[in-house]
Amino acid sequence: MNTKGEIKKAFPLAQVYGLLEPGPVVLVTTARAGRANIMPMSWHTMMEFLPPIVGCVVSNQNYTFEILRATGECVINVPTVELAKKMVACGNASGQSVDKFKTIGLTPVAASVVKAPLIAECYANLECKVIDRKLVTQYNFFVLEVIKAWIDPRRKRSRTIHHQGEGVFFVPGRRIKLPSPKTSFITTGSACKP
Amino acid sequence: MNTKGEIKKAFPLAQVYGLLEPGPVVLVTTARAGRANIMPMSWHTMMEFLPPIVGCVVSNQNYTFEILRATGECVINVPTVELAKKMVACGNASGQSVDKFKTIGLTPVAASVVKAPLIAECYANLECKVIDRKLVTQYNFFVLEVIKAWIDPRRKRSRTIHHQGEGVFFVPGRRIKLPSPKTSFITTGSACKP
Repeated sequence: MNTKGEIKKAFPLAQVYGLLEPGPVVLVTTARAGRANIMPMSWHTMMEFLPPIVGCVVSNQNYTFEILRATGECVINVPTVELAKKMVACGNASGQSVDKFKTIGLTPVAASVVKAPLIAECYANLECKVIDRKLVTQYNFFVLEVIKAWIDPRRKRSRTIHHQGEGVFFVPGRRIKLPSPKTSFITTGSACKP
Repeated sequence: MNTKGEIKKAFPLAQVYGLLEPGPVVLVTTARAGRANIMPMSWHTMMEFLPPIVGCVVSNQNYTFEILRATGECVINVPTVELAKKMVACGNASGQSVDKFKTIGLTPVAASVVKAPLIAECYANLECKVIDRKLVTQYNFFVLEVIKAWIDPRRKRSRTIHHQGEGVFFVPGRRIKLPSPKTSFITTGSACKP
């Protein structure tokens, strides 16, 4: 990864589910005609382990909606709690009138496959392509495939941000380890018992 | 709510998003021909505030898949950390061979609208109907409408369980309050700025 994002390492696609499954707020970046935007989002879910498929809702009231529909590309950036105020600022401004990277103070870094930029300050970055639009018109629901993933290897425990509504968030607290099959038993992979 | 679930109160549908948006593991109950089953799940997302619409993946490898497809009904039960071991037990057994309510020790309570039971021990219970099956065949993705919600009013802070993969979970830690519009700014409602 280049300038300012150079410490990021490629992250195995098979492990992407562990980043999104616990429900963090993410920052979605898009770009069109050389102009990039950022939108916070927490209405997303994993849909497949490998290739990692993610479903998400992007309201058609949002500036990001039209760019995502037109370009079919975005980056899902996973922020940690140090970025909480900037994340909120991204949600309270509109990309129609401001360049959020400049006004809010975040660093765009060129992605490897998509035109949307990675956010250097974020713990993880997932380059995505839209692969299914069947629920876009009715539910604003996009199905994305993650085609390249990046992570900051210096972060051992990611203090992601989780939204409980009306401006109340939490960060991960006590961790617990429980016996379960190696692959995610609680989701939907073939390792699940029926 | 009746026996053993009698302390539960009806919960406003407009606030349901705050229960699911931060990404807790939930226990999905289904029933067919008088036989009920329980399946842990954390691949779900909110899709609309009101009526609350939830999208979720239920693998066709799971016993629950066929029951959900056939009956079009389920209950999303939100467990807290006291139930972590029972939640894992639900994921490691199959409803095809055992009655998980009996063997694992959870209490079924009749729901008000759907045939699937509520789990009395869970903090919140959402009665759901399947409203869209367009992505079921390809992605095992069901779109549900929450038609009735219940909550335990004695719980002030819900210690939900969040899965990070391979048997590692966390419970909510430090909470932070940040200024944002009253409705969920980070999701997709019309209150969002574009």
